[in-house]
Amino acid sequence: MIQRIGEFLLRRLEEVGVRHIFGVPGDYNLELLQQLEDRRGPEWVGNCNELNAAYAADGYARMNGLGALIVTDGVGSLSAMNGIAGSYCEHVPVICVCGSIPQEAVDCGWLMHHTMADGSQDRFYRAFAEVTVAQAKLTPENAVVEIDRLILTAWREKLPVYMELPSDVGYVEVDVPETSLTLSYPPSDEESLARCCEKIVARLQHAASPALLLDIDTERFGVATRVAALAERLQLPVATMPGSKGMFCEQSPLFAGVYCGACSGAEVRELVESSDCLLTIGYRRVDSTSGTFTDDIPGNAIHLNGQSVCMEDDNFEDVYLGELLSLLVRETDAKSKRDCRVVESSDAETWDLSRRPLSQREYWQAMQRFILPGDLLVAENGTSGAGVAGLRLPCRSTLITQGVWGSIGYSLGCLLGTLMAAPERRQILWIGDGSFQLTAQELSTILRYELKPYIFLINNGGYTIERTILGRTAKYNDIANWRYTEMAKSLSRTQEIETFVVHSSLELDAVLSSAHRGMVFVEVVMDPMDAPVGLIRGMQAVANLDYGPSGPQSALGAQITEAEVR
Amino acid sequence: MIQRIGEFLLRRLEEVGVRHIFGVPGDYNLELLQQLEDRRGPEWVGNCNELNAAYAADGYARMNGLGALIVTDGVGSLSAMNGIAGSYCEHVPVICVCGSIPQEAVDCGWLMHHTMADGSQDRFYRAFAEVTVAQAKLTPENAVVEIDRLILTAWREKLPVYMELPSDVGYVEVDVPETSLTLSYPPSDEESLARCCEKIVARLQHAASPALLLDIDTERFGVATRVAALAERLQLPVATMPGSKGMFCEQSPLFAGVYCGACSGAEVRELVESSDCLLTIGYRRVDSTSGTFTDDIPGNAIHLNGQSVCMEDDNFEDVYLGELLSLLVRETDAKSKRDCRVVESSDAETWDLSRRPLSQREYWQAMQRFILPGDLLVAENGTSGAGVAGLRLPCRSTLITQGVWGSIGYSLGCLLGTLMAAPERRQILWIGDGSFQLTAQELSTILRYELKPYIFLINNGGYTIERTILGRTAKYNDIANWRYTEMAKSLSRTQEIETFVVHSSLELDAVLSSAHRGMVFVEVVMDPMDAPVGLIRGMQAVANLDYGPSGPQSALGAQITEAEVR
Repeated sequence: MIQRIGEFLLRRLEEVGVRHIFGVPGDYNLELLQQLEDRRGPEWVGNCNELNAAYAADGYARMNGLGALIVTDGVGSLSAMNGIAGSYCEHVPVICVCGSIPQEAVDCGWLMHHTMADGSQDRFYRAFAEVTVAQAKLTPENAVVEIDRLILTAWREKLPVYMELPSDVGYVEVDVPETSLTLSYPPSDEESLARCCEKIVARLQHAASPALLLDIDTERFGVATRVAALAERLQLPVATMPGSKGMFCEQSPLFAGVYCGACSGAEVRELVESSDCLLTIGYRRVDSTSGTFTDDIPGNAIHLNGQSVCMEDDNFEDVYLGELLSLLVRETDAKSKRDCRVVESSDAETWDLSRRPLSQREYWQAMQRFILPGDLLVAENGTSGAGVAGLRLPCRSTLITQGVWGSIGYSLGCLLGTLMAAPERRQILWIGDGSFQLTAQELSTILRYELKPYIFLINNGGYTIERTILGRTAKYNDIANWRYTEMAKSLSRTQEIETFVVHSSLELDAVLSSAHRGMVFVEVVMDPMDAPVGLIRGMQAVANLDYGPSGPQSALGAQITEAEVR
Repeated sequence: MIQRIGEFLLRRLEEVGVRHIFGVPGDYNLELLQQLEDRRGPEWVGNCNELNAAYAADGYARMNGLGALIVTDGVGSLSAMNGIAGSYCEHVPVICVCGSIPQEAVDCGWLMHHTMADGSQDRFYRAFAEVTVAQAKLTPENAVVEIDRLILTAWREKLPVYMELPSDVGYVEVDVPETSLTLSYPPSDEESLARCCEKIVARLQHAASPALLLDIDTERFGVATRVAALAERLQLPVATMPGSKGMFCEQSPLFAGVYCGACSGAEVRELVESSDCLLTIGYRRVDSTSGTFTDDIPGNAIHLNGQSVCMEDDNFEDVYLGELLSLLVRETDAKSKRDCRVVESSDAETWDLSRRPLSQREYWQAMQRFILPGDLLVAENGTSGAGVAGLRLPCRSTLITQGVWGSIGYSLGCLLGTLMAAPERRQILWIGDGSFQLTAQELSTILRYELKPYIFLINNGGYTIERTILGRTAKYNDIANWRYTEMAKSLSRTQEIETFVVHSSLELDAVLSSAHRGMVFVEVVMDPMDAPVGLIRGMQAVANLDYGPSGPQSALGAQITEAEVR
């Protein structure tokens, strides 16, 4: 059948489940947006800027399996680059469509606005090749093949892709297939799969202390349910890594806690490090997931990755994670139930309401009581991310963090995406003032689409996470003190937003225990030198690694210390 | 002498006149910020995010000759990339210092946060090589040489540079020169310079209609005064290109108007296109500077560039612009004064105040009366940029636009930079609501530093410039309707900001004719379908080029038309 290239692209995105596209208009993508508007789908979600759009597409993809954004050449695409690189680092399949300069201008060598205008070509294309797994410049000849290749690659690899659609190509008609695009993997090599499974089963059968350790690919490759089934069947204790917290139910008796080297509890550390058959899912050893390399994974651990398996004495490059897990469940005998929970029980002390200035400790105690089964939780890097690390998450809840990429401001854009993808769920964002200021305007898009999350913003006068690393009282860690609740209210003339400023546990409790109708925006005032203890401990090691032996971190008063936490 | 590498870098920046550094803290740059704070200079200006920091450094560099920003690896640097690419496109020397992951981690192959964490290296370095003219990774061995090379290259080429300072290298001590770094060019080749000058003088002597045409390098290479001296000496009429408006005094009798092909007035078009000896300064033929390639520069024009001269029958690759202009002034005979002004006189009709909804036409008439000699004017792309194009600028005023790169939102960040560089001047920003929303939070930094510009924000419900191209009434060109004045006020708890909302010429006049003390922020409500006529005419050609013959731009109602302008 004959179809315009832009329409075919939009059709393909719809076929693979992309129901919303994020982005910002620009003259090189208006023709594609016109096609989007004319065909009434996917729904266009106009963002305030492209970085926020990339964050939203990332959050959307995490909940939806795929996300997409449309930007304009150069001024748009480069603004989105940090978000796209974050998707790469965090294994999130996002399709970045860049409306690029007209092909006629390329062919004629004309200098165009939104380019370097120096006669060079493909500069931004090459820059994007550094932060995406696959790229294409669409032409009438290659569009059908390349669109399908890029969508499939993003989905299979769980990584972002980049495509350029020249603005004079979107309306060109080409012959396209009538059949839908289906997302699937090629089957694993049968023999490899069988042999790999057999080896793992044999190891498990002879193991005295088998265990599972999950990293982010558990969720990204959609195998959390199968992992849970395997754990249940074999009664394996399950530890999660920081970025994958919540990918195994924390209320399960099999849940063993979060493992991150020296930053872990003693029991989970012992469990992981002394396991004689540790199965990891997508294990990646990064400073921020390993307690700054203080982890000690057994050398004979079996590493299950999205598309390969790695053992001490063997590896399989043609085995897909989902298939392997299904086979493992089938090929193993169910063990009788046991309670292997080793995680410390969460803080059950009396909830003592007071008018005293609120401490981080009280704040997170209150949040532990506030969160409910099924909640979708988004936590920004900083004291928010550190506080969430100490929570015991309820059943069927989802936690989103960006623990390896760690781009502050990400969480607010991400929240727009998760709200669009799962508007039926209660969603909660924890963010700090410093992070909020990077992307604050995107709150207006959340309001514009009548979405109603809870947003808890810590106002503690700056980058407290940095104060735990260096510059405890330095001016460079200070920020402007906005009237946050008024700022939030100013972003819509029509939508209801309930705002609160709280200074004590009593005030916080009053907000948490009331019923609300609109978006709830709570400014939580806390001390700049207060932080979750885990953060302070972890950041000392970060500073030592970052600045080396000649660095300034050991000077008196250079960092927030554990002693001053309230 | 012995000095720490970070301190040497900061010392060098100070030596070349960088008195303020923009940016955002991150754990890979805190040690450098600590050195900045300890040595009390240059002054640190903390931004809300890195894109805004890059825009501010660009604005600062335009006024100061050099600008600098400090960002952290990946999450920071990539966010700044659009701004840095804009500096490249617009020939602005900005030094981007990226605090990168510790060298120890690189050497050991450790996976670090803020990287792709996949074992790859130098991805962001290579991406930055696409948007900067020179790059370096600083080490104890190369730091002294590379820091000087990059600063000099940025200044000489008028282009941005990128340097990575690993976080564990900043405190390493090295042997550094005691002498200051001096910004200078190597001298032109003497013989080339003499021969080039001679040829130009001969051409000028035999010319019947010599003229000057200025592009942005006139200002970037610091030769505006010398160009004016040459024009004055030879009584040459001077036309400016859109991006260089104001680089020659528009009150001078020699000023001939702005030339941009078919978008120019008939007189200036005739003057440029029929000149038998057109001297251009930094001429660059881009769609947005040439009336979408409707210009017609004489084939025998002499093109003077920053570091070369190009003639029909010759070229000189070793002649520097400043030297050449000085020599031309010396080697030519002064002509007697004449009035060759061909620019149309500005609108002098009666200023008719009314309570009717304000039109773009009335708005710009009011601005024509409001601007004063010496003003520093910043105009955002869109109807603001188009409106400013129709103003006759007063003496000693400066106009900043970003006409080729054209990244919306740029102007607000830029304003922070120009205010820091020239706080003694009255500064005025014209911006639209769509553009404002991209970078709005940076207003808080302007307030935080107690700076007091005039900001005029057009609230016309979206991207009107796009409506003139495509999607006249399309939803994708709509944006959220903020309470702009309340938003502005919410960004500071201490600074005074005078806000106004105006709907008519009467209300606008009341604001313009009153005295003010603090920052003045005026929301100007206008019709979404109203725009300067010049914009509408120009954008039809843009749409035809962008979308080609099969595009949607010719459908009825696809674009705002001239007929509906008020």
